[in-house]
Amino acid sequence: MNASAADAAYERDARYLTTRITRDGSSGYPVAPGRYRLVAARACPWANRALIVRRLLGLEDVLGLGMAGPTHDEQSWTFDLDPGGLDPVLGTHFLRDAYLRRDPEYPLGITVPAIVDIGSGAVVTNDPDRITRDLATEWVEHHRPGAPNLWPRKHAEELESVIDRVYRDVNNCVYECGFAGSQEAYDEAYDRLWTALDWLEERLSTRRYLVGDTITEADVRLFPTLARFDPVYHGHFKANRNRLTEMPILWAYARDLFQTPGFGDTIDVAQIKEHYYVVHRTINPTGIVPKGPDLAGWRTSHGRERLGGRPFGDGTPPGPVR
Amino acid sequence: MNASAADAAYERDARYLTTRITRDGSSGYPVAPGRYRLVAARACPWANRALIVRRLLGLEDVLGLGMAGPTHDEQSWTFDLDPGGLDPVLGTHFLRDAYLRRDPEYPLGITVPAIVDIGSGAVVTNDPDRITRDLATEWVEHHRPGAPNLWPRKHAEELESVIDRVYRDVNNCVYECGFAGSQEAYDEAYDRLWTALDWLEERLSTRRYLVGDTITEADVRLFPTLARFDPVYHGHFKANRNRLTEMPILWAYARDLFQTPGFGDTIDVAQIKEHYYVVHRTINPTGIVPKGPDLAGWRTSHGRERLGGRPFGDGTPPGPVR
Repeated sequence: MNASAADAAYERDARYLTTRITRDGSSGYPVAPGRYRLVAARACPWANRALIVRRLLGLEDVLGLGMAGPTHDEQSWTFDLDPGGLDPVLGTHFLRDAYLRRDPEYPLGITVPAIVDIGSGAVVTNDPDRITRDLATEWVEHHRPGAPNLWPRKHAEELESVIDRVYRDVNNCVYECGFAGSQEAYDEAYDRLWTALDWLEERLSTRRYLVGDTITEADVRLFPTLARFDPVYHGHFKANRNRLTEMPILWAYARDLFQTPGFGDTIDVAQIKEHYYVVHRTINPTGIVPKGPDLAGWRTSHGRERLGGRPFGDGTPPGPVR
Repeated sequence: MNASAADAAYERDARYLTTRITRDGSSGYPVAPGRYRLVAARACPWANRALIVRRLLGLEDVLGLGMAGPTHDEQSWTFDLDPGGLDPVLGTHFLRDAYLRRDPEYPLGITVPAIVDIGSGAVVTNDPDRITRDLATEWVEHHRPGAPNLWPRKHAEELESVIDRVYRDVNNCVYECGFAGSQEAYDEAYDRLWTALDWLEERLSTRRYLVGDTITEADVRLFPTLARFDPVYHGHFKANRNRLTEMPILWAYARDLFQTPGFGDTIDVAQIKEHYYVVHRTINPTGIVPKGPDLAGWRTSHGRERLGGRPFGDGTPPGPVR
């Protein structure tokens, strides 16, 4: 990227509250069933990861879930889907309140996912990468029987490398397309995105999952972007070389995950579309939400079983959604 | 459409200069080789019709062509692609000048296609329906040998009926999707559009062309919208139930016409995209032009020959572009 493109490029504010919740409690926040509340939103891809991991690991009984509605103003996500507009445990309408309890001068974005300490009503962390990693590695003793190992040690290096590129060139890159401040910045992001999607199309042609032969955090990270691709990123973010449905391998991979318990059951496309098209008035001034695309294909057979793979390794799929 | 949707619905200003150029010259403007200049733009679907008809009928030598660039401001299309930014025959930069010569207080939109009387420099007509109809029926003695009959008398009624629906529910309806002022108005237009596209998909499954077994004005009217569908209307206008490439019959029909001399050779997708995405700042505030979609498929075989049909009836295709 040259200087002028860089000037107009979208940059995500990736500063988060990074306090960790750990087994040893060294941060003051030990892993403890019932002590915390995960706040997410069906709309948000970063929160989507945490929803998937909570399901895959069977943490529903030990980590409660507050769900913000699809739209928000510049100030905050809100609990507008709950009766009375209040989260039934936190008792607030604005998620922002939980950030202000952590820091009355909290200067950064009010984001999901966030984990709130129920007793104090304050956000402990909103670092999306750390949240899923710690759910997988620090909350181990509370995992359901048969929970998968999302961070297999023998593939650690490959996992980090894949996750890193998926973040840079896919998860975040669609935003760089959509929020580019110049044609040049957009063009650069578009090229990087499609180079990465071509790489994934190739990589997934001979393996069922991104790393190893089981579902890992890498799949958890890629899936939320694929689920939003045709309904939002293709048109709204101009990521439009192809639709996901035109990338045969990636499309089959996405359907395979969608049909796996813990993935598709976290998705609500109506909320996803409403969020992006209503909230982003700078790129969709009318706030009108497209009726398309036709999503009938997501439940069709994907044929990925022929590649082998053991979705849950030595474990089992999670049960039905509670 | 109910009242509130109607209030927010997009309405095209379809008031035009309707002076006709006729064989009998009764309007003061007789058909005459070399007397007029057609002004078009590659970007505009209404002008695209006139470009196709001029090619199909071989009128290049008798009706000169001025070509405005893809973008324009609120005042006028301009001849910014010409050397010095001036149309070499009309000598103006702004097409608006030719409208003001017709009427110094001209109160309506400066549109293409327009036919200008070269001597006076004044626009005679900018009525897109009338222009193509009169080129086909009034300029007959100047048609090339082998020119097709675009208005076959034996199908007159069916032709009018198909053209009418194609205008209302396709050509103009994509604009109603894109410029809807409310969710309700958009939803209504979207449903009407896709009902019509499903009707066309069905209709074209057993016949190669829309009316009769030859190319007619009905095909001329539908093609410019199909050519713009995936690059513009799908994303920019939220006409996104499917891409054209996902409608197998319509997609094959569109490729068949694209590969027919006189159709595809009028298309410039780069100019089309630049026009819509740069000019319509109310729905694309950044003015950024998407790089997609991949258009490689347009030149692939379409298999429509199996339906029979005689593209040019007893006539012949036009020769190469001059």
